[in-house]
Amino acid sequence: MPRYRMTIEYDGTPFVGWQRQDNSPSVQGALEDAIEKLSAERVTVTGAGRTDAGVHALGQAAHFDLEKSFEPGKIRDALNHYLRPAPVVVLEAALADSEFHARFSARGRHYLYRILNRRSPPALDAGKVWHVSPALDAQAMHKGAQALVGHHDFTTFRAAECQAQSPVKTLDRLEVSRRGEEIHIEASARSFLHHQIRSFTGTLKLVGEGKWTPADVAKALAAKDRAACGPVAPPDGLYLVKVDY
Amino acid sequence: MPRYRMTIEYDGTPFVGWQRQDNSPSVQGALEDAIEKLSAERVTVTGAGRTDAGVHALGQAAHFDLEKSFEPGKIRDALNHYLRPAPVVVLEAALADSEFHARFSARGRHYLYRILNRRSPPALDAGKVWHVSPALDAQAMHKGAQALVGHHDFTTFRAAECQAQSPVKTLDRLEVSRRGEEIHIEASARSFLHHQIRSFTGTLKLVGEGKWTPADVAKALAAKDRAACGPVAPPDGLYLVKVDY
Repeated sequence: MPRYRMTIEYDGTPFVGWQRQDNSPSVQGALEDAIEKLSAERVTVTGAGRTDAGVHALGQAAHFDLEKSFEPGKIRDALNHYLRPAPVVVLEAALADSEFHARFSARGRHYLYRILNRRSPPALDAGKVWHVSPALDAQAMHKGAQALVGHHDFTTFRAAECQAQSPVKTLDRLEVSRRGEEIHIEASARSFLHHQIRSFTGTLKLVGEGKWTPADVAKALAAKDRAACGPVAPPDGLYLVKVDY
Repeated sequence: MPRYRMTIEYDGTPFVGWQRQDNSPSVQGALEDAIEKLSAERVTVTGAGRTDAGVHALGQAAHFDLEKSFEPGKIRDALNHYLRPAPVVVLEAALADSEFHARFSARGRHYLYRILNRRSPPALDAGKVWHVSPALDAQAMHKGAQALVGHHDFTTFRAAECQAQSPVKTLDRLEVSRRGEEIHIEASARSFLHHQIRSFTGTLKLVGEGKWTPADVAKALAAKDRAACGPVAPPDGLYLVKVDY
């Protein structure tokens, strides 16, 4: 029974998120429906990251098993045909060995958060960025972010509904930089807690506005208290960029 | 009677184009409706370029006259409020002198055409790029493009419905470059003929695929015959980037 792995791009706007839900459009459901149209088999697609409603992916990873065997290039092209007009595309498909698991084999996850930092709201990137009007100090945000890098108890930056067994994680990288009218926040870790990057972003925005000092971020982390977190940023600006195996 | 000039960003996808049409959504109509909500005056907004259906703008320029006087920052913010949810935003508004004319005072227009050159269609940029699957040779396209730069009779690259008095124009710049999975075509001139950049793009794509040599572009130009043009590229990838005054 061959196992296939895929790299997937999607616009999260019209979806309730990655995870299948009855009577609501999900990325997982769109992929499973397309696979059924191709193969007449109903399978479960397992993703590396269960992105929330409105969160996008440039390089989500996933796997599934089929009874029938297909050439991987044919899987990619046929799924892209059956996925239309849903904004989900398969960038790559490949045969994987039976040990490969999109979620549990992942060694690193890379996310990008895009803030559009200008007076006027986005026209071309509506739903694809978080619009923040006051001028943000990206250098101060970056300085604050460095307090979060490393092995920590991230209780402050964890959603109440998070299902992870432990709030202790290792954050490998959290870089904040200005790119013209945008502020980019790049985060890398083996795995993340629920709403962790959006909680980081909402907190770092307070630093960018000058409402918090960079040192306040370290204090919020040390508090290990959800109430110490800044307001959680909206999903619009968040992208799952790449998963390492 | 004060004259105002604006810089405007829009997603052309839901519009029949810049130009107002009865009972169809246009960018010009959306702006005129928003101005009426702000001022209770019905005005005509004049744009620098009358972009076609599906063509986008990062920096369209326009002007209009009002009886009432408003602070320009207030015009920008109020129009952005009344424009919602149409994907049109005012980036800047300023007072202009009465001689200023968005169309006739323009000294240069800059456009970008984005081709997504990969096997899989776009998910995040659907409607914002032209998807071309076969690998394109950007260097050959750039070489072919150089035959078009300068003062020429562009009859070959002009739509039948073009209303310009003469097909003779000066093309200042036509640069083709690869940016990862994308090919960018950047075009600058004082003014363009109808469908000129989309005609260039469709023709240069033939060079990128190896169906035409760069020298064939010069031959097509010299033919001064619409039939010598490649297929016109779709509007999706075209952006009015900036207008010089």
